[in-house]
Amino acid sequence: MNAGRVIGRMWATRKDASLEGRRLLVVQPLNFRGAETGPELVALDTVDAGVGDRVLYVTSSEATIPFRPGLTATDATIVGILERVDHVTGSW
Amino acid sequence: MNAGRVIGRMWATRKDASLEGRRLLVVQPLNFRGAETGPELVALDTVDAGVGDRVLYVTSSEATIPFRPGLTATDATIVGILERVDHVTGSW
Amino acid sequence: MNAGRVIGRMWATRKDASLEGRRLLVVQPLNFRGAETGPELVALDTVDAGVGDRVLYVTSSEATIPFRPGLTATDATIVGILERVDHVTGSW
Amino acid sequence: MNAGRVIGRMWATRKDASLEGRRLLVVQPLNFRGAETGPELVALDTVDAGVGDRVLYVTSSEATIPFRPGLTATDATIVGILERVDHVTGSW
Amino acid sequence: MNAGRVIGRMWATRKDASLEGRRLLVVQPLNFRGAETGPELVALDTVDAGVGDRVLYVTSSEATIPFRPGLTATDATIVGILERVDHVTGSW
Repeated sequence: MNAGRVIGRMWATRKDASLEGRRLLVVQPLNFRGAETGPELVALDTVDAGVGDRVLYVTSSEATIPFRPGLTATDATIVGILERVDHVTGSW
Repeated sequence: MNAGRVIGRMWATRKDASLEGRRLLVVQPLNFRGAETGPELVALDTVDAGVGDRVLYVTSSEATIPFRPGLTATDATIVGILERVDHVTGSW
Repeated sequence: MNAGRVIGRMWATRKDASLEGRRLLVVQPLNFRGAETGPELVALDTVDAGVGDRVLYVTSSEATIPFRPGLTATDATIVGILERVDHVTGSW
Repeated sequence: MNAGRVIGRMWATRKDASLEGRRLLVVQPLNFRGAETGPELVALDTVDAGVGDRVLYVTSSEATIPFRPGLTATDATIVGILERVDHVTGSW
Repeated sequence: MNAGRVIGRMWATRKDASLEGRRLLVVQPLNFRGAETGPELVALDTVDAGVGDRVLYVTSSEATIPFRPGLTATDATIVGILERVDHVTGSW
């Protein structure tokens, strides 16, 4: 799983039926020192995350697990809101 | 999921039977500031996307979900047309 | 899916039983401008590809789909021979 | 599988139900010469690992295997504590 | 699939039950010109590979296929010993 920050939201009227009614959030991957670790991605939301939140997200086929037993065409899903981290570089 | 732009189309007469009748589109991955984020890939289409469209695509085994219950030998599928994005750098 | 060129062939006498009788081809990933986009990989063949052919290949668990219902220990499979590409940089 | 060192711990009150009661550890990927090989990730724990331990972790859908038959929304799981390595550059 | 060379072995007493009795080998990914193409990884062995052998390995969920029907928590498995390669740069 990776950490990131929600930096935007996306709308798509024409989309796969399994994505209907899902919020599409733009996430910037970050490490725990706050540095960007890769390009932005679009993730589905399961924890009512909003712009500015630091989140934990899963990728690959695990991203579909929170929506089972239905099959949802996603490869990235936010599964937690980061609340506290104890890290070799300090806590926050 | 990632954003990209459709920049071409590809034809293959000899191909796996599960790809018969599918449109093969060339997609350039982009971030929301318009910068290229990786090499081009070939994706199947589910939303009637055309050259020039900004699209949302899924990769890995999730790319097969829109074609279930049949099994399709794809690892990248376009699942939405980007219509509007609200992003820390502005909306479009 | 990605594009590449077949640049070699590999033999392995000791190998997993699911690979018996399969051709192991060495593929150089390319973009549609002909530039190399990553390190070489070894892919199984489903379309009788030969050295020099430009091909379309799938990776990850989708690579096993052309060989179902049997389970084959591959994570890369050639699924098409590139015949024609219309691309923003021209056709070929 | 990859090697890494546990360098922190993370808490998330709002999270996917399948993550309830699981420890979320921050792992720095390392090679066997001790160099960092990529950005930090968050992994679930199955072997009671602690901060400072060198560990072996799996990613992708294999990360869910230790928690089967239940489905857990993880794409990284620690599956071993590194005890000894014999390596071309020496043993430790 | 990718090519690599076995450069070490790893021991973990505390590990996931599905890894019990499996040999954990350290593999350096290589291309066919002998250059390193990425960081070392740890792979399970199915072909009795030893240190120094050039091998073919699979990653992702395909790595579990040689151990089916049981579920093994691995994302990298050696599936062949490279014996001969005919490559645009020569044979060996």
